[in-house]
Amino acid sequence: MAGSTIGTIFRISTWGESHGKALGVVIDGCPAGLALSEADIQPYLDRRKPGQSKFTTPRKEADEIEILSGVFEGKTTGTPISMILYNTSQQSRDYSEIASYYRPGHADYTFDAKYGFRDYRGGGRSSGRETAARVAAGAVAIKLLKELGISFTAYTRSIGDIEISYENFDADEITNNMLYMPDKDASEKAGEYIEAISKEHDSIGGVIECRISGVPAGIGDPVFDKLDANLAKAVMSIGAVKGVEIGDGISVSKKKGSEDNDSFKLSSDNTIIKNTNHAGGILGGISDGSEILVRASFKATPSILKEQATVNKEGEEISVSIKGRHDPVIVPRAVVVVEAMTAITILDSILINMSSTIDNIKAFYDK
Amino acid sequence: MAGSTIGTIFRISTWGESHGKALGVVIDGCPAGLALSEADIQPYLDRRKPGQSKFTTPRKEADEIEILSGVFEGKTTGTPISMILYNTSQQSRDYSEIASYYRPGHADYTFDAKYGFRDYRGGGRSSGRETAARVAAGAVAIKLLKELGISFTAYTRSIGDIEISYENFDADEITNNMLYMPDKDASEKAGEYIEAISKEHDSIGGVIECRISGVPAGIGDPVFDKLDANLAKAVMSIGAVKGVEIGDGISVSKKKGSEDNDSFKLSSDNTIIKNTNHAGGILGGISDGSEILVRASFKATPSILKEQATVNKEGEEISVSIKGRHDPVIVPRAVVVVEAMTAITILDSILINMSSTIDNIKAFYDK
Amino acid sequence: MAGSTIGTIFRISTWGESHGKALGVVIDGCPAGLALSEADIQPYLDRRKPGQSKFTTPRKEADEIEILSGVFEGKTTGTPISMILYNTSQQSRDYSEIASYYRPGHADYTFDAKYGFRDYRGGGRSSGRETAARVAAGAVAIKLLKELGISFTAYTRSIGDIEISYENFDADEITNNMLYMPDKDASEKAGEYIEAISKEHDSIGGVIECRISGVPAGIGDPVFDKLDANLAKAVMSIGAVKGVEIGDGISVSKKKGSEDNDSFKLSSDNTIIKNTNHAGGILGGISDGSEILVRASFKATPSILKEQATVNKEGEEISVSIKGRHDPVIVPRAVVVVEAMTAITILDSILINMSSTIDNIKAFYDK
Amino acid sequence: MAGSTIGTIFRISTWGESHGKALGVVIDGCPAGLALSEADIQPYLDRRKPGQSKFTTPRKEADEIEILSGVFEGKTTGTPISMILYNTSQQSRDYSEIASYYRPGHADYTFDAKYGFRDYRGGGRSSGRETAARVAAGAVAIKLLKELGISFTAYTRSIGDIEISYENFDADEITNNMLYMPDKDASEKAGEYIEAISKEHDSIGGVIECRISGVPAGIGDPVFDKLDANLAKAVMSIGAVKGVEIGDGISVSKKKGSEDNDSFKLSSDNTIIKNTNHAGGILGGISDGSEILVRASFKATPSILKEQATVNKEGEEISVSIKGRHDPVIVPRAVVVVEAMTAITILDSILINMSSTIDNIKAFYDK
Repeated sequence: MAGSTIGTIFRISTWGESHGKALGVVIDGCPAGLALSEADIQPYLDRRKPGQSKFTTPRKEADEIEILSGVFEGKTTGTPISMILYNTSQQSRDYSEIASYYRPGHADYTFDAKYGFRDYRGGGRSSGRETAARVAAGAVAIKLLKELGISFTAYTRSIGDIEISYENFDADEITNNMLYMPDKDASEKAGEYIEAISKEHDSIGGVIECRISGVPAGIGDPVFDKLDANLAKAVMSIGAVKGVEIGDGISVSKKKGSEDNDSFKLSSDNTIIKNTNHAGGILGGISDGSEILVRASFKATPSILKEQATVNKEGEEISVSIKGRHDPVIVPRAVVVVEAMTAITILDSILINMSSTIDNIKAFYDK
Repeated sequence: MAGSTIGTIFRISTWGESHGKALGVVIDGCPAGLALSEADIQPYLDRRKPGQSKFTTPRKEADEIEILSGVFEGKTTGTPISMILYNTSQQSRDYSEIASYYRPGHADYTFDAKYGFRDYRGGGRSSGRETAARVAAGAVAIKLLKELGISFTAYTRSIGDIEISYENFDADEITNNMLYMPDKDASEKAGEYIEAISKEHDSIGGVIECRISGVPAGIGDPVFDKLDANLAKAVMSIGAVKGVEIGDGISVSKKKGSEDNDSFKLSSDNTIIKNTNHAGGILGGISDGSEILVRASFKATPSILKEQATVNKEGEEISVSIKGRHDPVIVPRAVVVVEAMTAITILDSILINMSSTIDNIKAFYDK
Repeated sequence: MAGSTIGTIFRISTWGESHGKALGVVIDGCPAGLALSEADIQPYLDRRKPGQSKFTTPRKEADEIEILSGVFEGKTTGTPISMILYNTSQQSRDYSEIASYYRPGHADYTFDAKYGFRDYRGGGRSSGRETAARVAAGAVAIKLLKELGISFTAYTRSIGDIEISYENFDADEITNNMLYMPDKDASEKAGEYIEAISKEHDSIGGVIECRISGVPAGIGDPVFDKLDANLAKAVMSIGAVKGVEIGDGISVSKKKGSEDNDSFKLSSDNTIIKNTNHAGGILGGISDGSEILVRASFKATPSILKEQATVNKEGEEISVSIKGRHDPVIVPRAVVVVEAMTAITILDSILINMSSTIDNIKAFYDK
Repeated sequence: MAGSTIGTIFRISTWGESHGKALGVVIDGCPAGLALSEADIQPYLDRRKPGQSKFTTPRKEADEIEILSGVFEGKTTGTPISMILYNTSQQSRDYSEIASYYRPGHADYTFDAKYGFRDYRGGGRSSGRETAARVAAGAVAIKLLKELGISFTAYTRSIGDIEISYENFDADEITNNMLYMPDKDASEKAGEYIEAISKEHDSIGGVIECRISGVPAGIGDPVFDKLDANLAKAVMSIGAVKGVEIGDGISVSKKKGSEDNDSFKLSSDNTIIKNTNHAGGILGGISDGSEILVRASFKATPSILKEQATVNKEGEEISVSIKGRHDPVIVPRAVVVVEAMTAITILDSILINMSSTIDNIKAFYDK
């Protein structure tokens, strides 16, 4: 099926394989009049680009984004924005080995089960490289939302057992260290841990958190298209995510109502606000004006040098060691992907919300 | 926006408020030829019916489902199945108090923010009562999937700190106790705990787990419509859910690749299977033939007798105690809702999957 | 598949068979705050109700609409509006004859081909009776659009060869005659013609025209979701329609550019208007501020007393005469259906349009 | 809004402006395993390429299609097929004149009304050039349908008053003449007529017909997603189309039931067929196994040298003559576009249909 498209009004469709000619995204439904150029998008791509640090794969991709349509005289026209990234550095290496067996933790087996065969070069469509296209689209959404006063702070919350301390939380630190952690100490410890795990030919998982401020109350829909439901889908659609949480997340299962309910009060300017934010900014699927908090748990990189059991195409049980250097942890490069997916989701809800009352519609059409 | 519809091929739309005349669901896209009557659906509704035990609200609803269309001579016709539940027992009590302020933890404030006003009777559209319509649709999906050899086991995994022991796991016990726990000991302890918490005028959260067996490998799509992404949306769209996990869920964030990867082997009949199932039956968004495991964390019932701070419509800070008896824990009655939402999602993916290869299409059309 | 749902933001789903218990519609996405009651909707249903005149089937249905959800204290809440019509008068007559063969011009054969069997009572889901649900939804759309200054004039343009004269066009006459023609002379001639054709045990086709005024320029989207494309789908989805035209319609194929182009000029208040309206109010799929004109060609009622050849379920060629009295012409009762479908389509486009520019979005969110 | 996407399972999204860097299409949901290369697609693009004859604009575009993703080792993988066409020959000419006023019959005014400004170079997104992307996607659909025994015959039925004679119908002649008419005499007369109309600095409309054979009975859905409704949208979404007809089309409005009904009979191999095909192969929105017949009426090219009145951006009434050579008739180059849009629509319905009965689903999953 389709499956490569998400969104209703602001709708994106990604395409492309890890080792094909190129990959890209078409954004359909971006409002007209937004100032936009490649320079707005490139910094986001650079955040997930490989080869940036010792913790990431040394594959060197220029990852230069090119806008092919939908922008005229520096502004979006309202028509589809097509963006492309060429795969410049994939070597014509020999994939026959990977083609011959199913890598544990990868989608090799399930692709074959579904489609009868697969593009086995570097993971094909299920490669993390596909997320570059999401990031490009997300950069557009983030820019537009900024004009509405909505901003995003995404970061690595933990790697393995090493978690940031909220007391040391320093937003400026996020882009200062290669792990995108808002806590210098934690990032250093995590760095050492990753080096150790690499030497063991192993990999490790982690948690990404994204905070969104400035979303007005009233965004999202009450039943299936709850804002948190759509965020859950958007974030769970990132490969390697196995858990999604909103606000206090799974810890609410152990809390009492009196602990978990956020009581209301009045702000100094008499607007209604909450004393706490256990709900993560969403009540009944609709934003409540507080900060929105989304959290994603990522599994470890499945490609490891350590020996693993598997089955080959001849139907024989074999033991494999995945060669090639791979990121020992997916999390740091995925921070911007989580930010992109939440931005795409929230923008779509913001646009959908405009027709929620007859009064708003009459005001819009000046009747 | 729409928002009350979910699914692509097997698509359901729910409607109705807690204290309106009725509520219901329209299933569009149910295949023709499925034997179906109210008797197939009623048992599922009975599982979430109020007034069943001392742990649930004493509101007495007959909750008798009626099929209005889409079934002829005992079989589905392929056209929309409309089902209705009348609200028979809501009393014409005085809601003016609830109408006058915003209940903490409820959607009262966000509905007003979005729509300018709200149906304040019993939560209106955001009431848990809406899920009765989902359960009716889910019962149809479950029946159809059973014919394909796919079955569901959903249960309460924990209430507060009290968790089932997998060593004591007894599927037959699930419907034997009022908490739908597959562990007699745990259910007894949880029962005592709930009684205690009720006396404190408080409430408590919990975790529901759903296991699906028999799903063939190859179901789901690789990018945004990953099977786990769609499950995450479906489950997070249930009010009170704040976290969704697949397989090992958030614990993967602390695991190494060598611990988390499921290695492949051959079964006795030479099909490819996995040695473990940390992935919860889904790799790269596509089912791998193992049991699918979904877990949802529910917050405590927000309606509590305990005093809470809030704001009223006159813009005054007040203190409230929510009267009326409410379930001290949502979880037991929500078990069948989680089962329903996962079934609806999996059935839709099963139907979509039929056109994934040209060979399958040619075989279908006999070319 | 789904197939019983239309619209993106203002989305309707119909359900129900001709001779089932009831039929109805769920409107999802109706903005909150619209004053609405059954009294707003009933007059539209009365316009298509059977048994109104000598030209229509004498089946007597009360066709009393009931709103089951989505309206509170006289106003829409923004949540799904569910409406129901009970089938009160279908007799438990013997359908075994109709069940035994395929009526020419009907969907009997194609339903069996698709679904393996069919609800043979009175056409089941493909009965014209399904359009009652569309009319109920359309009445809501028309009421909302009226508040935006948009109004509809739909009427019978021709029956067989008898066409209205635009010189005699009298909008007040439309509801004065049983054929909904805006020309008294034409309606009288058409009435006589229908009587004659009935005596021949035959039926006749006709044309319905719908004019929409007040739609501002800028509504609709440039590529697949052109306003005219969506209108074409909405109108062609009415059973018995075999042709849809916008503005000058098929006659443009014989016109020169210099004849067909509508030149622009300035109105007295300096807004841009057109000298003519061959385009029917839509240019490049987007409304141009002129009257929108849609035309639908309906085939004759396929149920006729005249002998016809067909095949029965035993695979024998037989000759049949369709008993029971049927409308000798579908057109008069379908006028309000065309009006409903165009209103539903235009309202959806009106709502979607609100997010077309960044300036509008910023103004809406007051940034 | 989105608006540049069509289809449910086989879904295409086009992007690109007439004078931007490139244009293209992403096909999402193409089944895996179809042999595909650029060579399968290029011949279709060549049929609509400009500069082919004296009747078309001399703009010379290589229009070489390039597949960027979704094909591996010569076969589709089931993942998105991205295809691109570079705009190689647009000159950096001066568009300031066209930018300064609204061309009659074009979308200049409506784009400005909707988006606040427009890409004025050569029509931007509303240029006929956008249809090249549809043709590329259509070529894939046509190839796949061919494997199911479904084939398309599209041609020019008339230009102005000059219509083909069905007695002279010669399918081989279609690609023999520059007007794609299946009647040599008519094509010669039409050619002379177009030359004459060009000398008058004018243009002319015409009719395209498309016949589809081999579609099995049972394709399409009974209510809004009727096969004819979806065809009507797909074809009306082609710029310049003002009327769409199925089978006998608008002429049914003057016919009696006894004339218009297609009676059933048995074929020599005892399958049910029809004696005539007034219905154009669709009954109740579902294919009946006969040839499907769709007809589209195109208006004349709106760009003409003849003087026309209009308004400029300064709000002054002016007189303009559209310079640059334009096709005096759109129809011949649009034949392949109609074929593409009908193929895309029918393929989508064919895939959706696979889950219409429980028996088919059980057979598919071998239960």
